Amino acid sequence: MAPALELLPKAEDIQALPSKAVNAISNAINGNGAVQFESAEKHQRVLNVFRAFIADLVQQYGDGHPGAPMGMAAIGIALWKYVMKYSPTNCNYFNRDRFVLSNGHACLWQYLFMHLVGVKSMTLDQLKSYHSTDPGSLCPGHPEIENEGVEVTTGPLGQGLANAVGLAMATKNLAATYNKPGHEVVNNMTWCMVGDACLQEGVGLEALSLAGHWRLNNLCVIFDNNNVTCDGTADVANTEDINTKMRATGFEVVDVYDGDSDVVAIVNALNSARHATKPTFINIRTTIGVGSKQAGTADAHGAALGVDEVAKIKRAFGLNPEEHFHIPQDVYDFFADVPSRGKTHEAEWHAAVAKYREAEPVLADEFDLRVAGKMPADWTKCIPAKEDLPTNPTASRKSAFVVTDKLGQNVKNFLVGTADLTPSVNVAYKNKVDFQSPDLKTVCGQTGNYAGRYIHYGIREHAMCSISNGLAAFNKGTFVPITSTYLVFHLYAAAAVRMAALQGLHQIHIATHDSIGVGENGPTHQPIAVPALYRAMPNMLFLRPCDAEETVGAYIAAIEHDTTPSVLALSRQNLTQFPEHSSREGVKKGAYVFVEEEDFDVTLMSVGSEMAYTMAARELLASEGIKARVLSFPCARLFEQQSREYKQSVLKSRAGKPAVAIEAYPSLGWERYADASISQNQWGKSLPCKEVYEHFGFSGPSIAEKVRGFVEEVKREGIESLRGDFRELNGGPSLGVEHPNVH
Amino acid sequence: MAPALELLPKAEDIQALPSKAVNAISNAINGNGAVQFESAEKHQRVLNVFRAFIADLVQQYGDGHPGAPMGMAAIGIALWKYVMKYSPTNCNYFNRDRFVLSNGHACLWQYLFMHLVGVKSMTLDQLKSYHSTDPGSLCPGHPEIENEGVEVTTGPLGQGLANAVGLAMATKNLAATYNKPGHEVVNNMTWCMVGDACLQEGVGLEALSLAGHWRLNNLCVIFDNNNVTCDGTADVANTEDINTKMRATGFEVVDVYDGDSDVVAIVNALNSARHATKPTFINIRTTIGVGSKQAGTADAHGAALGVDEVAKIKRAFGLNPEEHFHIPQDVYDFFADVPSRGKTHEAEWHAAVAKYREAEPVLADEFDLRVAGKMPADWTKCIPAKEDLPTNPTASRKSAFVVTDKLGQNVKNFLVGTADLTPSVNVAYKNKVDFQSPDLKTVCGQTGNYAGRYIHYGIREHAMCSISNGLAAFNKGTFVPITSTYLVFHLYAAAAVRMAALQGLHQIHIATHDSIGVGENGPTHQPIAVPALYRAMPNMLFLRPCDAEETVGAYIAAIEHDTTPSVLALSRQNLTQFPEHSSREGVKKGAYVFVEEEDFDVTLMSVGSEMAYTMAARELLASEGIKARVLSFPCARLFEQQSREYKQSVLKSRAGKPAVAIEAYPSLGWERYADASISQNQWGKSLPCKEVYEHFGFSGPSIAEKVRGFVEEVKREGIESLRGDFRELNGGPSLGVEHPNVH
Repeated sequence: MAPALELLPKAEDIQALPSKAVNAISNAINGNGAVQFESAEKHQRVLNVFRAFIADLVQQYGDGHPGAPMGMAAIGIALWKYVMKYSPTNCNYFNRDRFVLSNGHACLWQYLFMHLVGVKSMTLDQLKSYHSTDPGSLCPGHPEIENEGVEVTTGPLGQGLANAVGLAMATKNLAATYNKPGHEVVNNMTWCMVGDACLQEGVGLEALSLAGHWRLNNLCVIFDNNNVTCDGTADVANTEDINTKMRATGFEVVDVYDGDSDVVAIVNALNSARHATKPTFINIRTTIGVGSKQAGTADAHGAALGVDEVAKIKRAFGLNPEEHFHIPQDVYDFFADVPSRGKTHEAEWHAAVAKYREAEPVLADEFDLRVAGKMPADWTKCIPAKEDLPTNPTASRKSAFVVTDKLGQNVKNFLVGTADLTPSVNVAYKNKVDFQSPDLKTVCGQTGNYAGRYIHYGIREHAMCSISNGLAAFNKGTFVPITSTYLVFHLYAAAAVRMAALQGLHQIHIATHDSIGVGENGPTHQPIAVPALYRAMPNMLFLRPCDAEETVGAYIAAIEHDTTPSVLALSRQNLTQFPEHSSREGVKKGAYVFVEEEDFDVTLMSVGSEMAYTMAARELLASEGIKARVLSFPCARLFEQQSREYKQSVLKSRAGKPAVAIEAYPSLGWERYADASISQNQWGKSLPCKEVYEHFGFSGPSIAEKVRGFVEEVKREGIESLRGDFRELNGGPSLGVEHPNVH
Repeated sequence: MAPALELLPKAEDIQALPSKAVNAISNAINGNGAVQFESAEKHQRVLNVFRAFIADLVQQYGDGHPGAPMGMAAIGIALWKYVMKYSPTNCNYFNRDRFVLSNGHACLWQYLFMHLVGVKSMTLDQLKSYHSTDPGSLCPGHPEIENEGVEVTTGPLGQGLANAVGLAMATKNLAATYNKPGHEVVNNMTWCMVGDACLQEGVGLEALSLAGHWRLNNLCVIFDNNNVTCDGTADVANTEDINTKMRATGFEVVDVYDGDSDVVAIVNALNSARHATKPTFINIRTTIGVGSKQAGTADAHGAALGVDEVAKIKRAFGLNPEEHFHIPQDVYDFFADVPSRGKTHEAEWHAAVAKYREAEPVLADEFDLRVAGKMPADWTKCIPAKEDLPTNPTASRKSAFVVTDKLGQNVKNFLVGTADLTPSVNVAYKNKVDFQSPDLKTVCGQTGNYAGRYIHYGIREHAMCSISNGLAAFNKGTFVPITSTYLVFHLYAAAAVRMAALQGLHQIHIATHDSIGVGENGPTHQPIAVPALYRAMPNMLFLRPCDAEETVGAYIAAIEHDTTPSVLALSRQNLTQFPEHSSREGVKKGAYVFVEEEDFDVTLMSVGSEMAYTMAARELLASEGIKARVLSFPCARLFEQQSREYKQSVLKSRAGKPAVAIEAYPSLGWERYADASISQNQWGKSLPCKEVYEHFGFSGPSIAEKVRGFVEEVKREGIESLRGDFRELNGGPSLGVEHPNVH
C-alpha cells in the first residue's frame, strides 16, 4: 500500500537534496515496495554504454536521430528499470503500464531499452537494422504499433501525447466500470514522453487541457526539456512559462534539474505521479546529444555525429572506441531482474482477476469479453430492421442516431464523443452518463463519472480524434470510439484520422452537416474537398448514405470493418427516403443498382443527399423519352473490393451508353466510373439548403437539362468521342475567386 | 501623445471603482484625446435597441445565432463608438485598426454595428437579408472578406484568432521597415474578438503562444467570456485557469466583470492595450442572450428565441413589441460622430505620409508600392534562366531555394517562414534577419527584429498557415507569405490553407519531403493522400515538379496566380534533371509533352520524382520495341484551364492507344487522363529512398514490366475493353492492414 499522501514530502522539495541523502524518503514516495537503487556509479556506467551504442547505431548508415536518445538515457533507466510495471516477455499483458514515445524520432531510445530489458524480438541484429535496407526491420524510423512493445505509432508530433490521454481514459473507464472495493483488475499508469514539439503543437495543447479537466491522475507526461529544436534553441519560437501554463491547465508539475544523470531524482519524480490527484507533468532538464561535441545544439538532433566524434565519445566514457555495438555483460545484468518482476506483475494481475471472478462472476464474464476485445454477441440487435425505419423525409444524422442510441445504451465497447456539438450531431444516446471526474460535481456542478461513456471533448476536433486513437489502441476491440462533429471540421482532425487508418484502428466518425446542404452557415462550413482526402486514403472507409436504410448499412459496414476507421458523412437536412430502392446489402458492396432500366440511354450515378435530385431528374427525363438507370454509390472503396464481374454488372460500361455522376462535391475520382459529372467544383455560398443547391445547379430540372444535352451530344458524336475527354456539365475545377480580396 | 505608462493606474485596478468615478483616470488611460463618454443611461438605451434588433433578425427566418451578438453588445459599443480607429465611409483606408471576429457565428453583431456607424453598403435591407434566400446578401452566416468592412472570412473556430496574429505581425513588420522617428506611417492596432472555442482550438493556442513570444503589443484579444458552449456551460469540457495560462503565454491580462453593460470599464480595458508592452487579453464576463429567458444558457446560442419571447424582451427593454427592425433616430445619433472622426483619421494618415515623403523620398516610393500591393517590377530578375540551373541530380527542395533565396533577399513583400524545419526545407535565404521582438536579445539572446522577414513559427504548422492568411489579408499584395514544412504536416495545416483558397489569398507553401521518397522516417512521414485533398480543392494550385526547370516553372505559376494559394510539393531526394525535356512554360500549362513519339504504343504520364523511373522504363520498353511517349503532369488544375484543343494535343486519347499514369500517390484522379495507373494505394514503409520505391514497384524495370503486360493485353482485347475498367497495375485502393494491432 502507498503511504498516506499528506505524509510525504513533495518530490519537488526532495530535488533540492543530494540524491544519496534521499533514499529513505524516496522509498516512502515510491510506495508499494521500496525501490532498491543501484549505485550512482552503476547508473553512469549504463548511461555511458547506452549513449555510445546509440552513437554507433546512427553512425552505421550516417543517418538518424542520436541527440534525444542520448539525452533521455537517464529517464529511460528510471522508467524501464525502476518505475514502469510491465512484462518484457509478454509485452501485451492487459494491465501493463502503457508507454508512449510522442517524440517518435527518438525511437532508438525505446528500441535499445526494449533490447536491454529482454523483449525477445528486439535482438542486437534488429537494433542494427535501423535505417537499413531490411524491409523486415522491427526498428523503423518511428515506432510502429505492429511491433512488439509499441503501444501506438508515433511520429507526427503531438499525436502521441493525445494518444496517451486516450490510453489513460481507457484505464479510468475500465477501472470505474469493473473495479470493486478490494478488487482492482485495471489500474495501470500511462507514461508519455514528449519533446518541445508536442508542447507546441495544437493537438498536444488541446489534449493537455482535456487531461487536466478530466483529472487523469493515471497520466504522467514527461518533458524531455533539452531546449533545442531543429531551428536552434527552443526560445527561437517559444518563451512561455511552461510550468505555470501546465499548472493552469490542471497538472501537478514536478521539476528535475539534472536529467542527464540523476536517475534517483527522476525515479522519485515519476513515482510521485502515482500518488497525484491530477495528471503530472515532469519537467526534466536534459542535454541533447550529451557527451558529444554537438551536445546542447540542434546539430545533435537529426544527423550522425561523425566517426571520429563517436570514437571520442567512447574514450571519454571509458569505453573502447574500437568496439562497436557493444553491450558488456554487467549492463545486461543491471536489467536482469526486470523480466522476473514483469512475470510477478502478470501473476498478481491474474490472481486479482481470479479473486474478482469469485466475487463478481457476472461482471467478470463481461470483463473477460472486454479483455478479449469482443462485443457482446447480440450487438446486432442494436441494428433496426428496414421496416422500422422512417419513410418520411429524415436527415441522415437522425437516421444514424437510431443505431448510435442503441449501441450507446447497450454496448460498453462504444465510447461516444462530440466536439461540442451535442445539439446538432445526434449522438446523445438515452440515459447517457458523461465521462467526467466525479470531483467536478463540487467544483462546478458537472455530473458524470469515469464509467460514463459520453465524452464532451470541447471544441477540440483534432484532440478528439487523436485521443480516440489512444482509446482504440488500448487493447484491440476493448473500445470502439465514436466521434462526432461537422464534416468540415474533420479537416482539423485529419492528421489524427490518418494515423488511425495507418494503424488499422477501429473507430467510427459521425460527420454531419455534409455537403453544401449545410445551408446558411455558408462556404466556411460547407466541406468541399474533404471527401477527396478520405476517399484517397489507404485503409479508410468514407461512407455517404442517401437515406435511412443506407445509413444503417453504412453503420454496419463501419462496425464490421474492425481494422479500418470509417467516416459517415451525414446530412443536416431531411432526405427523401427510397425504401423500394435503397439497400443495406448494397451499401456493403459500395455501389449497386438503385433503379434498373432495360434498353437505357444513360446511367446516372449518385450518392448521399444528391440522390433525391437525381431521382427527380430521372422522372423528368423519362417524361421526355430518355431512359436513365440509376446507381447508388455510397462508398467507392468498398465497390473496388468487389469482383470485376460484379462491378461490370453494376456499371454496364460496355453497353456503349454514357454515364453521368451527380454529386455536390468536386468531380475528382468520378472519372473512374462516369464520362461526365455534375459536380461542385467551386466554393459554396451562404443560402438556405434548397436555394444553395438550386444556385449551384442541383435540382431535378437542372440535372435533367444537363443530362439531356449530354445524351444528345453523345448520340450525335458517338460514345468513342468521350475517350480522354471527361465532361464537367456543371463547370470544371476553378482557379481564382469571384471577388478577390478588395482591401 | 500617450502619457508615460508608469504614471497610469492599471486598468485592472480601475475596475474596482464605480464607473462614474473613473472618468478622469479613464481619460488619462485613453491617451491621445480624452474619451467623452455618453451617459450610462444612453449606453443602456443603445444596448436595448441593439439587442432587440438582433432578436428580430434571428426571429425573421427562425434561424441563426442571437446569443453572442446580444451578449457582446456593450463590447461593440466600446469598440465601434469609442476605441477603434477606422473610417466607416472608407473601410479600406490603409492605416485602419483591423478587427477580426474570430467567433464568426456572431456576425450579426458586426453587421449591425457596421450599419449603425454608417458603412454605406450595410443598409437596413441588407441586415434583413441575413439567412434569406437572397444570393446577393452582404450578410452571410459568417463574415466574408469580399464584403466591405470585413478583414478576413471567419467561421471555423480558432482561425480568426490566428489570422489576427498575422495582421498584427504585418503592422509590426511594416512599422519597423518604414516608420522613422517622428514619422509613423503605420501604427494600427488589431482587435480580435474570441469566444470559448477559439481558446480551446489548437490553432488558437498555437497562435497565442507565438503572439506572446513575439510580444505583439499591437494585438488585443477580447474574450467574450459567457461560459456557455453548444454542450452547456463551458466547464463541461474546460476548467483551466485561463488568466494564469494567458499570463504564462506572454499576455497582459485585464478583467472586466460587467461586460453586459459597463461600457466605460470595457473602453478603459481596451485602451489599456494601446500602452502595453505585450499583447493584451481582455477577459470580459458577459451573458449570452442577455435579456431573454434563454440568457446564460446554450439555448440562446444557435436558435431563434421565439416570437413571444422577442416581444417580451422588447417590453422589458421599454421598446414597442409591435415595432420590428426598428432603430430610433437617437440611436443613430449616438454613432453620428463616427464617420467624421474616421475622416480625421484618414486625413491625419495622409498628412503623415506626405510629411514622410518629404523626409524619406526613397522609402516613401517603396512604401507607396507596398500600399498599392505591388512587388518591385524587377522581381522577375529573381528567377534563374534555364541555363543557370543544375544538370546533376538535385533535390527539388534545393532547386526551389534558388528562387526563394533571391526573393527573400530582394523582395520585401515575401515573408518567409518555417515550422521549425530550417535545416531541411531550404528556405533560409542569404543574410536573412529573423522576425523577432528586439527585446528577446536580452531575454534569451535571440537576435532579430520586427523588420526581419524570416519567421520561426515553431512546431506549429496550423498556426503558421493561418497566420499567413492574416498576413496576406492585411492589404492585398502587401505581403506574400511563404511557408515551409514537410508535405505530410500540411495535413495539420489543411483547415487554414483551405481558408486561403476560399478567400483568394496569395501565398506559397513550400512542402518538402514529398512522396514515399522521404525514406527512413517511414509511413508516418510519407504524405500518401495529402495531394488528393489539394487537387480537389477549389482555387488551389498543387504543383509537383519533376526537376529544377519545372520547379522554377512551378514557382513562377505560384507567384503569378495572385488570388490563389499554391502548394509546391518538393522532393527530399536528388532528382535526375531533364534539361532537354522539361519546360517552365509547360508547367504553366499544367501538363505537356515531355517526349513525343510518332506511331506510339502507349502514353506514359508522370509527375515529380517518379518521372525518372518513367523515363527509365521508356528506355527499357523501347529496347523491346514498345514505343512510349511521355507526358509531364505537374499540375492537373492548370491543365484543366487549357483549351480542349491543347488538351487533346497532349493526351492524344483518340489515337486508340492506352495511357498509363505513374505516380507514387493514390490513383484517385488519374482516371481522367489514363486507362491504368501504377500508383501507391497503400501506406508506405520505413526504408531508404531507393529501396522504398523499389519495394512498392517504382523502378524502371518494374514499371516497364507492368506497362508491357498492359499494352499486350490491350492489343489482345482491344482499346474498347478498357471502358469503365480502370486498371490498377500496382494494386488498388486497400482496406485493412497487414499486421492489425496485436495488443
